[in-house]
Amino acid sequence: MTTQVNKSVHPFDKARLEALLNRRFFYAPAFEIYGGVAGLYDYGPPGSSLQANIIDQWRKHFIVEEGMLELDTTIMTPAPVFETSGHVARFADWMVKDSKTGDVLRADHLVKNVLEARLAGNLEARGVTAAPQDEKDKKKKKKGAKAAAVALEDGIVKEYETILAQLDNFSGPQLGELCRIHNIRNPDTDNEVGEPQQFNLMFTSSIGPTGQHPGYLRPETAQGHFLNFSRLLEYNNGRVPFASAQIGRSFRNEISPRAGLLRVREFTMAEIEHYVDPEDKNHGKFNEVRDVEIVLLDRHVQEAGGSETKKMKVGDAVDQGVIANQTLGYFVARIYQFLIKVGINPERLRFRQHMANEMAHYATDCWDAEIHNSTGWTECVGCADRAAYDLSVHTAKTGHPLIVRQALKEPIVTEKEAVEWNRKNLGKTFKQDAGSIQKTVESMDEAALVKLKSQLAQGSAVITSMDGKEFQLTPDILTIERKVFKQSIREFTPNVIEPSFGLGRILYTLLEHSFWSREQDVERGVLSLPPLVAPTKVLIVPLSARSEFDPLVLEVSTKLRRAGVFSRVDDSNTSIGKRYARNDELGTPYGVTIDFASVQNRTMTLRERDTMDQRIGSIDDVIATVTELVNGTIDWTEACQRLPVYDGVQAVD
Amino acid sequence: MTTQVNKSVHPFDKARLEALLNRRFFYAPAFEIYGGVAGLYDYGPPGSSLQANIIDQWRKHFIVEEGMLELDTTIMTPAPVFETSGHVARFADWMVKDSKTGDVLRADHLVKNVLEARLAGNLEARGVTAAPQDEKDKKKKKKGAKAAAVALEDGIVKEYETILAQLDNFSGPQLGELCRIHNIRNPDTDNEVGEPQQFNLMFTSSIGPTGQHPGYLRPETAQGHFLNFSRLLEYNNGRVPFASAQIGRSFRNEISPRAGLLRVREFTMAEIEHYVDPEDKNHGKFNEVRDVEIVLLDRHVQEAGGSETKKMKVGDAVDQGVIANQTLGYFVARIYQFLIKVGINPERLRFRQHMANEMAHYATDCWDAEIHNSTGWTECVGCADRAAYDLSVHTAKTGHPLIVRQALKEPIVTEKEAVEWNRKNLGKTFKQDAGSIQKTVESMDEAALVKLKSQLAQGSAVITSMDGKEFQLTPDILTIERKVFKQSIREFTPNVIEPSFGLGRILYTLLEHSFWSREQDVERGVLSLPPLVAPTKVLIVPLSARSEFDPLVLEVSTKLRRAGVFSRVDDSNTSIGKRYARNDELGTPYGVTIDFASVQNRTMTLRERDTMDQRIGSIDDVIATVTELVNGTIDWTEACQRLPVYDGVQAVD
Repeated sequence: MTTQVNKSVHPFDKARLEALLNRRFFYAPAFEIYGGVAGLYDYGPPGSSLQANIIDQWRKHFIVEEGMLELDTTIMTPAPVFETSGHVARFADWMVKDSKTGDVLRADHLVKNVLEARLAGNLEARGVTAAPQDEKDKKKKKKGAKAAAVALEDGIVKEYETILAQLDNFSGPQLGELCRIHNIRNPDTDNEVGEPQQFNLMFTSSIGPTGQHPGYLRPETAQGHFLNFSRLLEYNNGRVPFASAQIGRSFRNEISPRAGLLRVREFTMAEIEHYVDPEDKNHGKFNEVRDVEIVLLDRHVQEAGGSETKKMKVGDAVDQGVIANQTLGYFVARIYQFLIKVGINPERLRFRQHMANEMAHYATDCWDAEIHNSTGWTECVGCADRAAYDLSVHTAKTGHPLIVRQALKEPIVTEKEAVEWNRKNLGKTFKQDAGSIQKTVESMDEAALVKLKSQLAQGSAVITSMDGKEFQLTPDILTIERKVFKQSIREFTPNVIEPSFGLGRILYTLLEHSFWSREQDVERGVLSLPPLVAPTKVLIVPLSARSEFDPLVLEVSTKLRRAGVFSRVDDSNTSIGKRYARNDELGTPYGVTIDFASVQNRTMTLRERDTMDQRIGSIDDVIATVTELVNGTIDWTEACQRLPVYDGVQAVD
Repeated sequence: MTTQVNKSVHPFDKARLEALLNRRFFYAPAFEIYGGVAGLYDYGPPGSSLQANIIDQWRKHFIVEEGMLELDTTIMTPAPVFETSGHVARFADWMVKDSKTGDVLRADHLVKNVLEARLAGNLEARGVTAAPQDEKDKKKKKKGAKAAAVALEDGIVKEYETILAQLDNFSGPQLGELCRIHNIRNPDTDNEVGEPQQFNLMFTSSIGPTGQHPGYLRPETAQGHFLNFSRLLEYNNGRVPFASAQIGRSFRNEISPRAGLLRVREFTMAEIEHYVDPEDKNHGKFNEVRDVEIVLLDRHVQEAGGSETKKMKVGDAVDQGVIANQTLGYFVARIYQFLIKVGINPERLRFRQHMANEMAHYATDCWDAEIHNSTGWTECVGCADRAAYDLSVHTAKTGHPLIVRQALKEPIVTEKEAVEWNRKNLGKTFKQDAGSIQKTVESMDEAALVKLKSQLAQGSAVITSMDGKEFQLTPDILTIERKVFKQSIREFTPNVIEPSFGLGRILYTLLEHSFWSREQDVERGVLSLPPLVAPTKVLIVPLSARSEFDPLVLEVSTKLRRAGVFSRVDDSNTSIGKRYARNDELGTPYGVTIDFASVQNRTMTLRERDTMDQRIGSIDDVIATVTELVNGTIDWTEACQRLPVYDGVQAVD
């Protein structure tokens, strides 16, 4: 009975979406009135609410559902932490400088833009028509790579395609060589570019009044988890597996960000660090996700220059070794479920495995959730196996053991040679050499100890210390005996599986997936955001700002608030149709109209955003129905069975 | 019928509270395993949850209830913004250096610590016993000011007291003079200190790969609101008053922070900017708060060297001019209500007005909500009238008008002389001087124009331009006529009332106000956090980790989650009494025990944290009751009327 809506009658128009997002203040360049700074954006009221709702769902889906331990650690970080973690040495991108202007470009992005433009130019020269919206995009980024319509040899096309498929796998020197071989220049100036240089992506600062503590703004929240591992473990009664989770701001001083919310210098991320026994990476709830079907692009396909994906059940992917273990597979499935829940189109979501050279310095395996959008496939969630890397390096640096101590059910019994010193005699005889002698003996292996023991049994033995000196030892200095040892505690450094979410990227791709234009009028944009994350759930529209509607407006908004439904009133001085159109742009899924009939008969109409269908009922029935719609316990078809169609004279659209 | 509890039988013991907060990982020094950095703290699971719950209440109390527009703007800020806002020049504290070690101290804190120590020493010398817990505090901060037991003359005591009452009002040079006159030295070394110097509290960084954009980490979120004012106003359909709100991280590079969460270098704040017509600072909802009683310490009392407070209704305070206007008064009252709601003791809350020199450079009036704690009275919320300062300076700097344009109900009609140029003749006759001539005439006042008009009527007129040249004008160049003008739009820069919350300070003082020890055992600390903000609402305690309890544990936790009640299971291998004691420390208000009777009869006991009373009922009755308790729709007395007392054999405490 509900109206059918064709959302794809008009092709996706990025310029139109961006105009809408700007006009409705979803987000805007930060410091715009000062000319702005690339890669910094402010979220306005609908963007903030959308982000807050996505975070709220994230908290429920992961932290509450899985009983994770939430943290809130500092952004400002003293330098030694990132020296140990490897970020000071290796958290860098390759940049090249324009040989004449000195403009700075990210090397891999330069290669990608120029080769993609040449491939497009090739198609054009061969008379293969580019899609109309590509044309528009090209016009917009006139400062980007130019697409001269030049035909390429088939071999060259194949070569370019292979380079693009493996782009993330090239080192800096390799990128420099690609620029030379393929004559890749700065497309803005047509100048040559210099050799790629590493640029560290961390923002620097210093802490304290005398600048004595150099510091960095964290580029990820992860180190804050790891440094607190001992406290977290104790909070969890000493047991693994468990996970910590944190939602917070991170910073990356990107070289030349030009991709809107998809590449920014300051961003909100949500990170999970799941600590697991390295000898048992099974997951207790894996069976619950075994049948979740996901699209995978594995490392081998990419390394062979391809990009063919396959659709698999997570259970099969783990069983067949495509995904390394159950814990990694469990989180891949949970990430998938989360993204679908907030409104990402499952047809435009895939999981891509990192190639060997592409992985961050701390990772041993990594699957990115990539979401398709107008710029291609973009990493929005990373799911990395960091193994024991971070906990180990911090333990080694600080001497504070970030380990798990586990009582063994069956103690491990071993027999071995044990040295006992007579410290008094040792000191008296060897004085300042005593320490060196002890070290030498205690570093001996079993065989050497047996030999030493038998020499001592014959009266004395000569050993050579590490610095080459010889010493004669006698049984009054030390004795060696075979003893039985019982180990009842096992110590190990847990491995860490890290799902890491870039919330701004999810938010932006969600906006692209939600945007469409009305069939009858391409200018009327709609954001079909799911009620779960829509900034406002219900718009209350009084026929006019006349005070006779005030008591009902107050009653309806109070009742909705008590029911936990976030509503806004729009009593602005414009037609109801225009007010609804504005709220279609804001993604508000439902609207209720209060008119003279409401005052007389206590009825109210209910409008659904996508279909623009209107139903009518008593104020309380409409509130009850819309509450269920927002909570997802009924859908619009069911709502239509409860409330009759509205065919009043005051048609409002 | 409920048990009476005496929470003040043991005096407050700060060391005991701090040990508890550390042990239960409410928060801990950040980077502790690297030796830590002063003024940076990480929140662990209970601290994060407590903070999240306070933020949630703040959002409901302010943003939702008042329909505020939420923002999320960047922390990283290009330098020009803070140059314009005055922060680069004036957001600074006075520091002094130890003349020998070079150690840096904050000048006002030095004066305060030394004089307070001398006053305490005076009391001791005169045989007035200091309170025992003060003694303990002194022992702890052995690096602080020493309290030598030296008697002081009455005149000196009075002088010190006056200085302390006015401390926030001294300039840097005045603080330097105080140090010289009163021989105030670095208490850690007894060395003299140098002249106070200004130290800017903003952390610096730079944006982009070539360091071309110097930047600061914001010390407040406010500028992010102001720069977006035009967009916000448009989002609000062009109407004032309205408010924007933001919750986010800010940074201040404090000189030598030593006061735990009360003075930190990175903190979460919640800020409201309420934009109001400068000619009408009344508030539409003021009558709702008129009768709220608050404790005030006004500017005049402090400037006279006193600190006597008075309790007043907000309505009276505004009517009598103690608080400048209704909007400021409205927010003072709403701040009061919020702090009480989250659990601050109203007896330990006052509003103190800033003295003239004490105010931030942008403020014209300011009331701080100060919360009493073990270190004295601490500012936790500031409520400042920033007037039109910020919007005006950004408008002047950028040329982007941050103003309101309001349609006048009655247009303002004025009659005045109007100049009309014959541009062709003007240009032909005067060439490059034409612009200068136009400027000169158009800047004339009414009288000068009337005179010029009469001269022109006689044939010609001579005018002198700004740079002293003379020009002869004739009627073919310009004519002047009296015309009627109608102004139907009024333009104005709104004033801004800014309530600004330091969430970490509220969180810490709340913990102090909530902490007490059981009468029968001082070692058993309890945090009586209100259910509204308690990290966990209900603890589920199975008698043991035996699997026969698993189905019930799952059932109860699922039902609680569906009811929106956050619970945790503690099935650790220790006695029920110990598990409850641990959760008293975590502030968990309710606990339910699942035992063999639960399995057999589907009953469950319910324990209240403060009284340790236990009641019993069917599992579903207990869940319904505890849900209402957590939501605040019933209190414990009412719960006791529903559920019979539990006097089973398995007494668990």
